[in-house]
Amino acid sequence: MNIKISSHGHYIPKKIETAEEVSKKINKSPDWIISRTGVKNRRISNIDVDKMGALAAKDALKNTSNPDLIINASGVPKQTIPDTSVFIQKELGLSGVPSFSVHSTCLSFLTAFHTASSLIESKQYKKILIVSSDRGSIGRNFNEPESASLLGDAAAAVILEPSINSQVMSYKMETWSEGAEFTQVKGGGTYRHPDNPKTIDNDHYFTMSGPNVYKMARKKVYFMIQKTLKANNLTINDIDFVIPHQASNTAIQAYSKFGGFPDDKVMNIIADYGNCVSASIPLALSIAIKERKIKRGNIVLLIGTGAGLSVASSIIKF
Amino acid sequence: MNIKISSHGHYIPKKIETAEEVSKKINKSPDWIISRTGVKNRRISNIDVDKMGALAAKDALKNTSNPDLIINASGVPKQTIPDTSVFIQKELGLSGVPSFSVHSTCLSFLTAFHTASSLIESKQYKKILIVSSDRGSIGRNFNEPESASLLGDAAAAVILEPSINSQVMSYKMETWSEGAEFTQVKGGGTYRHPDNPKTIDNDHYFTMSGPNVYKMARKKVYFMIQKTLKANNLTINDIDFVIPHQASNTAIQAYSKFGGFPDDKVMNIIADYGNCVSASIPLALSIAIKERKIKRGNIVLLIGTGAGLSVASSIIKF
Repeated sequence: MNIKISSHGHYIPKKIETAEEVSKKINKSPDWIISRTGVKNRRISNIDVDKMGALAAKDALKNTSNPDLIINASGVPKQTIPDTSVFIQKELGLSGVPSFSVHSTCLSFLTAFHTASSLIESKQYKKILIVSSDRGSIGRNFNEPESASLLGDAAAAVILEPSINSQVMSYKMETWSEGAEFTQVKGGGTYRHPDNPKTIDNDHYFTMSGPNVYKMARKKVYFMIQKTLKANNLTINDIDFVIPHQASNTAIQAYSKFGGFPDDKVMNIIADYGNCVSASIPLALSIAIKERKIKRGNIVLLIGTGAGLSVASSIIKF
Repeated sequence: MNIKISSHGHYIPKKIETAEEVSKKINKSPDWIISRTGVKNRRISNIDVDKMGALAAKDALKNTSNPDLIINASGVPKQTIPDTSVFIQKELGLSGVPSFSVHSTCLSFLTAFHTASSLIESKQYKKILIVSSDRGSIGRNFNEPESASLLGDAAAAVILEPSINSQVMSYKMETWSEGAEFTQVKGGGTYRHPDNPKTIDNDHYFTMSGPNVYKMARKKVYFMIQKTLKANNLTINDIDFVIPHQASNTAIQAYSKFGGFPDDKVMNIIADYGNCVSASIPLALSIAIKERKIKRGNIVLLIGTGAGLSVASSIIKF
């Protein structure tokens, strides 16, 4: 599909929470946090996901005309109804522009990116704004030290348009629902509604079985990389840069340790921002572009895992 | 886009709740309920949205092979994370099949239908299962009699495939965020999280300003019909059948009263099932096909409104 990322932007909350500060909330040492998760600092937002997303979108929209579609691609919504795209659109003052949400937790951005590319390729829209905004700090369970020290807040946005030279060369997604219970926020829907006597406080927080996720994900991601490269007649050397989901430092390092990509070709911002759920991939992408780690014509692999357990990857010619 | 609905199905919970029964919960008479909303009976599900959706999907899948993509297109999720598609896929025993969710409340089905059509048109997938499943009964606020007597539970599913004769002739969506607060469930996300001292019990229930929605929607829907027909060189007489969102009896009757469509060409199942949120449009469609109100080759208008306030319509050659 002949699609280009014509613009991008992000919003990083000002407030930094250090490993030292988190350590007091989870009763572990700062060293424990850094060695387990790799997260030295994470940002904490004092504005909600719609305003965060709108600031990222404004950064992406600053030198360009308005989009004809807005897709919110976030992990956790502002509220159940309406979907968050409506509130982001309202913040942007773009009433009238069609807006909806795509949700596959940490893979929401990749799913929306693929969906938006298809909508442009099939001539349904010409300029699509995708916004990923997550405020994981709200859902931290301080009785679960590892996930509580992983999460951070951020938002990022990209604009997609038709292109002559840029391409979405490949996209592949798999969902392995035997891992459905590895990563959860059980509340917020019909299952653990506040009226349900079985609902407990912990249902409103993020819970993750890190070792189970890692064990399953490492294998699935490895096979997806092999299959995707082969299907596109590419080798590891043809990939100029890798933008992985920032799940944890161990997960990111697996792309070089087991995946065979050189360390300096794999974007790693986990130490500064933590796992920003859906915003991790577009934030890493936006920062990589700003730091000129990715240039026009480069072959870039976007890859990650999400609750489900889902795995997705896309090879793009930037 | 050359796409056909190759199969369809639905799940209607067995338990009927009559206007008489609801009247006792909201302190109004059955006549008040029926004259205000048009809903005589609604169904109440004792299984959750994932199981309801899977039963509708099984109905759609019974004479056909497995899909290569599953899209959950529902208004309210089972839980915040993972998205509901994962749980529906698990119920179907289809581990490995990529699964994600699309959310635009009552328009989730239309949004997913358009998105899936684009994914097929651009040759990304060949057979997409869309499932809409909502259990609005869980979110009823009995202190808000009108919305509480409108909601009912149901699920419906369709399968989309490439086609030679069938077509998505047009699709149009608009989101008017000045109506963002007309229809809400404020809880379930970052805004009214249980940890927020401002969160109150009512935040976990559905709330709607019926008159505001109707006033705004009637105008927006009217103009969309005019524009869509004109853009496709069609007149009202060219439309063989209309499948509207089952928002309320007044809203459905507006399609004949103000829209100019003959009463017998507008699907109206509100008396038996109420407003089933995202499932209303595909349920009405599935029943209309089963009752042979729609035949191959017919020109069908799918149209509705959703929280946002969003308006969307699609003209399909069935």
